[in-house]
Amino acid sequence: MPDTKLFTELLDFIRSETDRHLVKLDIPQEPAYLYDPIRYVLTGRGKRLRPILVHLSGRGFDADPEDLMHAGLAVELLHNFTLVHDDIMDDDDTRHGKLSVHEKYGKEAAILVGDSIFTLGQLIIGQVQANTTVAFQAYNKASLTVCEGQAFDLQFEGDASTTLDQYLDMIGRKTGALLCLCAELGGILGGQSKDVCAELRNYGINLGRAFQQENLGKSLDSDIVADKQTVLTILARKHNGWDEISNSDADISTKRERMREFFLETGVDERARAMSHDYIARAQDSLSVFTGEHKKTMEQFTDFVLNRTH
Amino acid sequence: MPDTKLFTELLDFIRSETDRHLVKLDIPQEPAYLYDPIRYVLTGRGKRLRPILVHLSGRGFDADPEDLMHAGLAVELLHNFTLVHDDIMDDDDTRHGKLSVHEKYGKEAAILVGDSIFTLGQLIIGQVQANTTVAFQAYNKASLTVCEGQAFDLQFEGDASTTLDQYLDMIGRKTGALLCLCAELGGILGGQSKDVCAELRNYGINLGRAFQQENLGKSLDSDIVADKQTVLTILARKHNGWDEISNSDADISTKRERMREFFLETGVDERARAMSHDYIARAQDSLSVFTGEHKKTMEQFTDFVLNRTH
Repeated sequence: MPDTKLFTELLDFIRSETDRHLVKLDIPQEPAYLYDPIRYVLTGRGKRLRPILVHLSGRGFDADPEDLMHAGLAVELLHNFTLVHDDIMDDDDTRHGKLSVHEKYGKEAAILVGDSIFTLGQLIIGQVQANTTVAFQAYNKASLTVCEGQAFDLQFEGDASTTLDQYLDMIGRKTGALLCLCAELGGILGGQSKDVCAELRNYGINLGRAFQQENLGKSLDSDIVADKQTVLTILARKHNGWDEISNSDADISTKRERMREFFLETGVDERARAMSHDYIARAQDSLSVFTGEHKKTMEQFTDFVLNRTH
Repeated sequence: MPDTKLFTELLDFIRSETDRHLVKLDIPQEPAYLYDPIRYVLTGRGKRLRPILVHLSGRGFDADPEDLMHAGLAVELLHNFTLVHDDIMDDDDTRHGKLSVHEKYGKEAAILVGDSIFTLGQLIIGQVQANTTVAFQAYNKASLTVCEGQAFDLQFEGDASTTLDQYLDMIGRKTGALLCLCAELGGILGGQSKDVCAELRNYGINLGRAFQQENLGKSLDSDIVADKQTVLTILARKHNGWDEISNSDADISTKRERMREFFLETGVDERARAMSHDYIARAQDSLSVFTGEHKKTMEQFTDFVLNRTH
């Protein structure tokens, strides 16, 4: 399939250009206390999904490539800022197979590093030429929404009364808001109407929800330890027998296996999958704002993010 | 002196208007985990020196009052963001006579609260109408400089090789950059040239240096505990007998009194005062960009900040 090859080449190109620009950022040597860890973060291997989405969305509306590069870098910096601070709050030791910033450099440095990476993002989003004010207001509204999502997540920890709607709202903020921003920035920088931008946000939020659902399995262990609410645990609570598994003193691998079996037996797993498919369908619907090859590329991107084959 | 009375009334007016707008900010109820502590921070009693400086500087150039209110709120939020995060890093338990945010709500919440207050500041600086992009970039350049100052401060802790120049550079960033921004924003929003804005920054940085020097006495205890570098300790190190006092196991009040005596006996105290007077003179020189009543008001403000009588 030649178009899959072209799509992969396009993604690789955007990713390597993003990495090249991240390395090229004019990061001073001193204070080493601040800038050594910032270099450590920026040289990490990321999938750069968010800058890629900015570029793909903006190409669909003929946005200026330089503006898209600035916006892509700014969202990648925003994403990295939230990871550095979230890792402190969630006490996560590793990130992308490397020590997290606070583990390597201490919490004090990690707080400042997050603050500064966020500020670097602001300086870069402020450099876009088209609809500058609209772009940086969207950037900061999304940032605040991500903070709200993280706050709800911490607030819900260990709270077994969290409803499915509360959980979905939280995930929409924590994971969806940033993808929402990426898709929207393409429209803003491409001079699109409010209606088109709203549809782009809709795409992003549903992609975020589906992304979270598809990746639930990966973080099950740490979610169990932190007593995090997930779609699976919230749905499972309504079935007899869940409390026994959830409150048991079994070791983590036994507990994880029992949970997986329970999700399958009770149909919780299937219901979570159905929800995910609904989000994907809704995301695909919103792609009607794109035309021709651009629409196809966005569909390929959606499948790519969700690790789905054609 | 009637003009002193007028000046005091003007300050009170700007302060109460700033407080009124801070309370009026549309802060949601949920997530309470995030917004309860934000309300706690925003209802604190502050002197609002920074918004006052924005207003006084901008009035000198006929800037739009609504723009000045937005810019004043944005710098006050930036200031509060840095206080919340600095208190975590420096492990300070109280702030303005109240528990610090991390003491009252926990470190995780305090990290998020700082991030969100900073983001609220970004959303508000983005609302100024005159030279929006220039104002936004100045705001974020200053933010990054403040982060660098805090990084140098932490880097220098316990490092007795810190030179006077390194220390002054650090303080210029940590304390001066924000006052610098306040004075500059008045010029930016009043449509002034780059030269005038540079002079305004010069005023702010020297005011910041003088302010820091004049307030050294207040934080002597906590500075001793954290082994912080100050102008006094850096100058004192060059005199025989300092190491003995500095490294002694005496209790903090004895140590503080011995240090004070040492500063006086060796002339370190006098030299620090002379430096401060030099900064004040340099700050006053830069006020030549103002004319008539505005120049006089800025001079009164300088004296007011430094607690000096006429």
